[in-house]
Amino acid sequence: MAFTFQINNDVKFKHDEKLLIKAEENTPEIKHKTVKPECIAELINDDKKLGGYGIKKSQRDIKNLSSYKLKRDDSIILDFGNHYVGYFSIDLDYTGSPMDAPLFLRIKFAEVPVELAEKSSDYDGWLSRSWIQEEYIHLDELPKKLRLPRRYSFRYVEIKVMDTSPKYATVFLNPEVCSETSADYSKLKNNSVNDTELKNICDVSIRTLAECMQDVFEDGPKRDRRLWIGDLRLQALAGYATFDNKDIVKRCLYLFGAMPTEEGKISANVFVKPKIQPDDTFLLDYSLFFISVLYDYINAHPDDKEVLHDLYKVAKIQIDLTLKQIDENGRLKITDEYPVFVDWSNEFDKDTAGQAICIYALRQFISLAEMMREKDLLLYKKILDSMISFSRKELYDERRHLFVSGKNKEYNIASQVWMILAKVMSEKESHTIMEVAIKELFPVKGIATPYMYHHVAEALFIAGMTDEAINLIKSYWGKMIKMGADTFWEAFDPDKPDYSPYGNSIVSSYCHAWGCTPVYLIKKYLI
Amino acid sequence: MAFTFQINNDVKFKHDEKLLIKAEENTPEIKHKTVKPECIAELINDDKKLGGYGIKKSQRDIKNLSSYKLKRDDSIILDFGNHYVGYFSIDLDYTGSPMDAPLFLRIKFAEVPVELAEKSSDYDGWLSRSWIQEEYIHLDELPKKLRLPRRYSFRYVEIKVMDTSPKYATVFLNPEVCSETSADYSKLKNNSVNDTELKNICDVSIRTLAECMQDVFEDGPKRDRRLWIGDLRLQALAGYATFDNKDIVKRCLYLFGAMPTEEGKISANVFVKPKIQPDDTFLLDYSLFFISVLYDYINAHPDDKEVLHDLYKVAKIQIDLTLKQIDENGRLKITDEYPVFVDWSNEFDKDTAGQAICIYALRQFISLAEMMREKDLLLYKKILDSMISFSRKELYDERRHLFVSGKNKEYNIASQVWMILAKVMSEKESHTIMEVAIKELFPVKGIATPYMYHHVAEALFIAGMTDEAINLIKSYWGKMIKMGADTFWEAFDPDKPDYSPYGNSIVSSYCHAWGCTPVYLIKKYLI
Repeated sequence: MAFTFQINNDVKFKHDEKLLIKAEENTPEIKHKTVKPECIAELINDDKKLGGYGIKKSQRDIKNLSSYKLKRDDSIILDFGNHYVGYFSIDLDYTGSPMDAPLFLRIKFAEVPVELAEKSSDYDGWLSRSWIQEEYIHLDELPKKLRLPRRYSFRYVEIKVMDTSPKYATVFLNPEVCSETSADYSKLKNNSVNDTELKNICDVSIRTLAECMQDVFEDGPKRDRRLWIGDLRLQALAGYATFDNKDIVKRCLYLFGAMPTEEGKISANVFVKPKIQPDDTFLLDYSLFFISVLYDYINAHPDDKEVLHDLYKVAKIQIDLTLKQIDENGRLKITDEYPVFVDWSNEFDKDTAGQAICIYALRQFISLAEMMREKDLLLYKKILDSMISFSRKELYDERRHLFVSGKNKEYNIASQVWMILAKVMSEKESHTIMEVAIKELFPVKGIATPYMYHHVAEALFIAGMTDEAINLIKSYWGKMIKMGADTFWEAFDPDKPDYSPYGNSIVSSYCHAWGCTPVYLIKKYLI
Repeated sequence: MAFTFQINNDVKFKHDEKLLIKAEENTPEIKHKTVKPECIAELINDDKKLGGYGIKKSQRDIKNLSSYKLKRDDSIILDFGNHYVGYFSIDLDYTGSPMDAPLFLRIKFAEVPVELAEKSSDYDGWLSRSWIQEEYIHLDELPKKLRLPRRYSFRYVEIKVMDTSPKYATVFLNPEVCSETSADYSKLKNNSVNDTELKNICDVSIRTLAECMQDVFEDGPKRDRRLWIGDLRLQALAGYATFDNKDIVKRCLYLFGAMPTEEGKISANVFVKPKIQPDDTFLLDYSLFFISVLYDYINAHPDDKEVLHDLYKVAKIQIDLTLKQIDENGRLKITDEYPVFVDWSNEFDKDTAGQAICIYALRQFISLAEMMREKDLLLYKKILDSMISFSRKELYDERRHLFVSGKNKEYNIASQVWMILAKVMSEKESHTIMEVAIKELFPVKGIATPYMYHHVAEALFIAGMTDEAINLIKSYWGKMIKMGADTFWEAFDPDKPDYSPYGNSIVSSYCHAWGCTPVYLIKKYLI
């Protein structure tokens, strides 16, 4: 996530200290690894790669790094061989006459080669340019171990010598990254799948997930480095299929649960640095996904009743607040102040998808309510029935076998997918719907996030269309790999592969949590 | 100094540990002072100021600094009211929604307003762009006290917010500089002069000297921050008239004395950071000025015989090495490998000035040699006589009353001035020469440094032309003040006031040691 933002400065939040203590207690251990670059690399033009840029190994051998003398405008690209999140350090020295002027460096960190080709001065998008991973550094005295204090997310590091002086050159030694993740690779579950392409996709999924596993599940370690509940839901699911770190899921659940608004509403994301603090952005579907994350956790770890007991009330408030927006016919009314996200794209109507997500969450809530012997259980069941009934009667076009959305009775992919995920229709009906959807709405247009593609793929599996689901996974996530992905990207539109939602790749995130789900889908539906 | 450089990588240096220990023992105490900005300022166009830029006080009150909210591309200029050398810190915080992107700042430090107007990206001179006092800084978490680790030389600080995010603004609190100097203002000698303009010139001289007084006498605290012997000679003289810090002069003398080449030659400058190290640049006149600095020190502190005893031998080697270049007629032959500096300008012939500087230093050496009961004293006296005799016979044009220089018998100001400083001519003859020089060679052309102007002014005083000397001081150093100088500049050509030897003011030094001498001249010749 990142694209959506609101400003609601006046909102007041609760801080449940007991839950915050539990969030603190479940802080996952960060694992560190020291990694050296694999080689010195060169940026090359390559039409098949993202943005038209690829990387080739340089003639210069990394073993001889310290023999290369760099002066004004010289630069070197270090390739660490895979995506890392962590802290970069390098020893710097000089050669020649005494160092009669400071050393001035520019250091760029890139997840994909095209970032190295972009000029930060050209960036003029609305998203903060502070996300560009580029530092200008002066060093008055050499030799010096340069330890950059900030964490970066990268595979490539370009060091450009902005200047030395006419009298000396600089040399580099011992570049390394101290990488960080709370993923424990020794606990990685076996997810072997015979298909090589799917295996690659699984591996990149796992890398994506691991790189986003830090103190919390981050949405992207390059940007925004925050815990969004929409990403959390998918990360937790991918997590159960891989590293299965219970602590981090619990920590994230407690963080959201501890800090709703005074009214009880869960915000769309929380910050953990410099202090734990909820954002003032609210999305109805994201608030409801608190229930989903809790439901999925209980399913994955049915013995852990404490979490349910601690957080059931918070889950219930999300439903209760939503009930106010459901009319007597079972229709969810969505407001501008509390919109549904569904996907970044605002080019399609989201009413029906929102209705479906509400059904999806309400169904999960009822399961939790049953475990908790909820006294108002029947009420919730009644509302669920009325929402399903409304959806089938008023939103489903029986003639075309597609759901419609909004005043203009728009047919869009999100409506079909979410109605199937919400199990509003039988498997047979779902199959028909997805068949029609494939015929009429495929290839998917105007959707550029793995987040939405995940839901389309899962709907295909649920509708019994395994081959089509696999095809979609290969043509979407697989294509990212063909274009150079070491981790899955925040945004990718196969029709416009160079598309960046921010107009420039240097602020895009190329390791983004909501891209990590193929390993979950493959494990759940194929293994 | 700075303009001259050579690369002599193969030179080997001696390290006399005893002398280095004495250099260490005489390290002056650095005095710290915390200074707050006087006001928020705005850059204005002002044709009368350096580079066409001046400063005016902003409508925004510094007392309300923390109430100003800054977002992308907003900036603020802090005016500290005078020139400072030191460490800058500021508290940063944010206001608005939670900080959902790093803060990205550009901080520029400027000694003069025009530096704020220059773009660092436009700089393309040969001098290292690493000297530009401009930092780009990312802060991931606020609030934060930002303490920049580097030392800057400045009066103005411009903080530009490169970006926040659409959701928050940044605010600034408690900007301050922790200033550094080894000058002790409580020990400043009274130099009161009735003339207001001269008093101002004295005050700016003193500030210039104090700002360059650090661990050693630096040539410029912005750039190059090194101990050059040509600057040292003038700083020490200005020092005796003001703060009279014996330690720093001794430290500098011992540093040069401890690290000549294996042959014994004193290098033109030494570095003290990260380690004590002589540069591989050699200038004949600068090597000889080791004698002058020692001579001046003994004159200022006649009781301190230890320094003379420790360093006499080093002084003697400088003369003895030079003698090899003096022919039987008393003519100094200057080589390309060991040139004379005299001034930055290479547009005039330096042979006669070099000859005069050699006489100047030899005369001082003979004084020292007498104190040390030098056995070869007569030899040195004989050489002095022959050099003077050669100069008067072969280099002086009796018809025009001017010295000539080089094959083309060029008449230039440097030759006249140095022959007068070397006391080759009587006071009456000197007076005549300077009268002719004023008529024929004034206003001085093609010379852009206070270094050379200092020697012209002193020659006028020695020639008994006090009014003319005062006029020159007022029209040169006084004009810098009118153009906005808080400290005297590295380079200034009154005919081309915007001239920078580096093509761009952002690498020029506007607090430069060799500009500090008016206080010495005024005290010696007027008080």
